[in-house]
Amino acid sequence: MAGDHSRSLGKGSAAPGPVPEGMIRLYSMRFCPFAQRTRLVLHAKGISHEVININLKNKPDWFFEKNPFGLVPVLETSKGQLIYESPITCEYLDEAFPGRKLMPSDPYERAFQKMLLEHFSKLTPVAFKYFTSVKDGPDAMVLKAEVAEKFGKFGEILSKHNTEFYGGDSVSMLDYMIWPWFERLEFELKDSLSHPSKLRHWMEAMKEDPAVKATMTDPQTFKDYLQLYVKNSPEACDYGL
Amino acid sequence: MAGDHSRSLGKGSAAPGPVPEGMIRLYSMRFCPFAQRTRLVLHAKGISHEVININLKNKPDWFFEKNPFGLVPVLETSKGQLIYESPITCEYLDEAFPGRKLMPSDPYERAFQKMLLEHFSKLTPVAFKYFTSVKDGPDAMVLKAEVAEKFGKFGEILSKHNTEFYGGDSVSMLDYMIWPWFERLEFELKDSLSHPSKLRHWMEAMKEDPAVKATMTDPQTFKDYLQLYVKNSPEACDYGL
Repeated sequence: MAGDHSRSLGKGSAAPGPVPEGMIRLYSMRFCPFAQRTRLVLHAKGISHEVININLKNKPDWFFEKNPFGLVPVLETSKGQLIYESPITCEYLDEAFPGRKLMPSDPYERAFQKMLLEHFSKLTPVAFKYFTSVKDGPDAMVLKAEVAEKFGKFGEILSKHNTEFYGGDSVSMLDYMIWPWFERLEFELKDSLSHPSKLRHWMEAMKEDPAVKATMTDPQTFKDYLQLYVKNSPEACDYGL
Repeated sequence: MAGDHSRSLGKGSAAPGPVPEGMIRLYSMRFCPFAQRTRLVLHAKGISHEVININLKNKPDWFFEKNPFGLVPVLETSKGQLIYESPITCEYLDEAFPGRKLMPSDPYERAFQKMLLEHFSKLTPVAFKYFTSVKDGPDAMVLKAEVAEKFGKFGEILSKHNTEFYGGDSVSMLDYMIWPWFERLEFELKDSLSHPSKLRHWMEAMKEDPAVKATMTDPQTFKDYLQLYVKNSPEACDYGL
């Protein structure tokens, strides 16, 4: 059964058949922040889709035919077209499907969102290092401080704008692109944000967004998953099912 | 005098004034392959522009206000908008200015070009290592083989298509995005390409493109520049003027 919460496919599994007409398929993993970007856009635009979760700790051989890098997210269309790299999947969905456009139409505003995303992409490795560090160890303390400083600083960009979200007064592409990390780091950022801060306000507003609600993972589940992930457990990606 | 071949501005130089109405400014460096991407697009679309070259071995302090990363290319508009990161500058120009669109209009074709660019961006550090290695040393030999193999393999993507260029039968965005490295590596690739190869044919066809002709550097000049560059000479960026 293909769905957001289906068990992942691992080595030895049969490759799925062609994508049915009128449908788009996402190869995903329930806890992956990059794949969540694509899930957010699919939900925000109300696109009919199916999800096939991949066991990233025990990848099926056939998955490398979908993406030579072996990473999620990957989109597959009914024509057999394959699209990977999370920002590319999201822009593809925004351009190929009708409904509210998540990217602005003004060329400079578009460039601005892409530049901020480029800045942001330098932060995600820091978050990954923190997530996979030994909890309560000295490294984790240092990394937590680094995460709070860097993500907090990125958040300050909001303070310079008079808008509620990064691209204006409604949620747009950049908000979705960065949200998965803020969702996972809320606890770490809580102590270090001023009260009230614009970033805190943004996080509260994001949590009310229907696409965010549809793809959210509760913090304890994410923590438990991480414990299995750092041990390279083949059960990590199916935690809680 | 602002122009493609103007002397570069270094530390202590006065920051240039606002960009005149109806004009766009490029902060560039004559030998930088990333900035050449933007120059190719400016020429291909016939956009009125001025060029300010930056001395990358002796950067002016004010340049970090144009781009916090201190890298070229950067575009500046008459409204004071700043755009950096080479693919972002090129997409901006393609979207903001009239004339032939260099990006395809089909969403999947667009995604395909972006995915290939992502692959390609993993190769440019290998080329940089080769360019800056000690010539005729054992490292350079190994790097030369690696460059020939990796760029040659990327070139093979063309063999799988029935088209002359990467995006079809005329030059499109991806061709310009990758050209600067092939221009600089032609000599290295010559020995390792089969005769006749599609990549060789593509390189010959690219050399006939007016934008390529307008931005080309002859191989000996590039080599001489590199010798100064690896020595961190503040004269490197102005070599030959």
